[in-house]
Amino acid sequence: MQRNLNSMRIKPPVGSCASGDFLTGHYWALFDGHGGPAAAILAANTLHSCLRRQLEAVVEGLVATRPPMHLSGRCICPSDPQFVEEKGIKAEDLVIGALESAFQECDEVIGRELEASGQVGGCTALVAVSLQGKLYVANAGDSRAILVRRDEIRPLSSEFTPETERQRIQQLAFVYPELLAGEFTRLEFPRRLKGDDLGQKVLFRDHHMRGWSYKRVDKSDLKYPLIHGQGRQARLLGTLAVSRGLGDHQLRVLDTNIQLKPFLLSVPQVTVLDVDQLELQEDDVVVMATDGLWDVLSNEQVAWLVRSFLPGNQEDPHRFLKLAQMLIHSTQGKEDGLTGEGQVSYDDVSVFVIPLHSQGQDSNGP
Amino acid sequence: MQRNLNSMRIKPPVGSCASGDFLTGHYWALFDGHGGPAAAILAANTLHSCLRRQLEAVVEGLVATRPPMHLSGRCICPSDPQFVEEKGIKAEDLVIGALESAFQECDEVIGRELEASGQVGGCTALVAVSLQGKLYVANAGDSRAILVRRDEIRPLSSEFTPETERQRIQQLAFVYPELLAGEFTRLEFPRRLKGDDLGQKVLFRDHHMRGWSYKRVDKSDLKYPLIHGQGRQARLLGTLAVSRGLGDHQLRVLDTNIQLKPFLLSVPQVTVLDVDQLELQEDDVVVMATDGLWDVLSNEQVAWLVRSFLPGNQEDPHRFLKLAQMLIHSTQGKEDGLTGEGQVSYDDVSVFVIPLHSQGQDSNGP
Repeated sequence: MQRNLNSMRIKPPVGSCASGDFLTGHYWALFDGHGGPAAAILAANTLHSCLRRQLEAVVEGLVATRPPMHLSGRCICPSDPQFVEEKGIKAEDLVIGALESAFQECDEVIGRELEASGQVGGCTALVAVSLQGKLYVANAGDSRAILVRRDEIRPLSSEFTPETERQRIQQLAFVYPELLAGEFTRLEFPRRLKGDDLGQKVLFRDHHMRGWSYKRVDKSDLKYPLIHGQGRQARLLGTLAVSRGLGDHQLRVLDTNIQLKPFLLSVPQVTVLDVDQLELQEDDVVVMATDGLWDVLSNEQVAWLVRSFLPGNQEDPHRFLKLAQMLIHSTQGKEDGLTGEGQVSYDDVSVFVIPLHSQGQDSNGP
Repeated sequence: MQRNLNSMRIKPPVGSCASGDFLTGHYWALFDGHGGPAAAILAANTLHSCLRRQLEAVVEGLVATRPPMHLSGRCICPSDPQFVEEKGIKAEDLVIGALESAFQECDEVIGRELEASGQVGGCTALVAVSLQGKLYVANAGDSRAILVRRDEIRPLSSEFTPETERQRIQQLAFVYPELLAGEFTRLEFPRRLKGDDLGQKVLFRDHHMRGWSYKRVDKSDLKYPLIHGQGRQARLLGTLAVSRGLGDHQLRVLDTNIQLKPFLLSVPQVTVLDVDQLELQEDDVVVMATDGLWDVLSNEQVAWLVRSFLPGNQEDPHRFLKLAQMLIHSTQGKEDGLTGEGQVSYDDVSVFVIPLHSQGQDSNGP
């Protein structure tokens, strides 16, 4: 597992018509590796550079309320501003686009580096960027970020797993059946079928279905399922618990030539929190953590811990760091005097607590 | 444009172990045709039969709280109920699955019939089914259903157009570039590019992007866009304003061999309204209408018209029919004394008003 906390200065290109000021942002990132640490380390060393490069390429558009159709500023068609207006394109859409492109670029870098060094592995990526009064949360994988305020808990990301992306993954196997090499069945059944089920009518669903139907079991239905297992046990091709992330370019199903990468996306989902529009309180925070935390604590439990801890420690300059440490402790089965339930996470856990009130000045995470 | 209003009796299969009772439901459907009426007429004559057949095939599962893993009722694996429970499968998921399968089956029937008769055309489909205390709304296209209550307006469908399904459509063109035959560009730009734009850096987005970025215009960017236009003017391949529906099997881009059908889905999105859980008032209704209504009236305006009309007409047994007629009149630019704004829809308009309080007894639509 790797984490990053950076300030980021985004400078306009030399000789550009934009003002010479730097844009300054802050960047937090969690990378939860699998199949070895190589991809997570590469991502931690690379993604912020990719993002800065992508942001620098569009910085002239960023400083405008609405980005110009032409980056040169030269208006070729008099109706350009009207078209940009009709599409509803705002400066924040350029940051979203930069995050999407940066994840893809970083994934390509990781693929080249892994191949060159003979290493393997992949990682999830959860990134928060504070820029121009907004917090952008980009997520590819099963980490999670939530906003916790006195009267509000707001999810800032959703998880991408074989279960949540079932239809996308089944759809790909439908379009490219050769990706399953005749070894897996695309269909979902409530459990893995056995010889006894042959000829019976059983519940199933295919790529186009959100509901369920019945089909008569034939021999091909007895193959191992493309997506198998429930909740934390759900696996893609019996191998991987996440469906988005970076790396895994060489990953294959054990003892086969079947590749995982075609089913994985490196593109994140990006949500935007308009921090400037919130009436911020001293104790409003964003909690970012890997799945190890959320496996044992719900959003509500984390919010309860945040609200129990922060008000009594307002004089402590390290209270956000201590809160992050306390959140981790509360996944280790120790009596913490708050939950007293002793949940245990057998996964490793990484947490950032980002205070929004003094954004970026005091945040930290163990 | 075609519409349907049916009662539907779903009988268990002969010799089945389920009770001999019929399940009785009600069915409303709107089909908005394009390229001629043939597909809409076929859909109006066919879809309810497909749905009844699909429901009859799963009726034993429908009458259980949780459908059994095996339709025969024979439990082959003792943990079957547990797996069904873990997947969260409920009887309503079988109705959703039946609707999804019925739309697909109906689309195949329409394809065969159109080809056999040398006819062409397609249609949208919006279907509401009242069954076992729930209202299922299945939508493929740009019609819309909303729930209107005294204190609530709830959308029961969302529209499927080239704009709302941009990423799915661009993704397909990315995977199968041959579908564009070198004549169209997959990329989205705020406006169609011209020779003057060559070499400039302009706003664009590709299939993986929700945000926007800049690229330098090359010659291939000057091609006609896969999706072009804004709002009601948006077209797929310059031809079609909807991205889901039935029919269109033969539809091609004018003067080319480029097919539209690979980009279209017949599968509907299904939402479920748990009518039995609502504390129903006399004037709670569902309004279903084709895009001609929603082009000129917002959900809020329709709700305002409903709430203005119904309370003063509670003794009139035909008040729901009259309300539907009034909604249509209010799109014809006539002073109706309610909106007084005289909006005009140049499209044809069909409306159902479904009273939930006496579900199915009194509903009607012009």
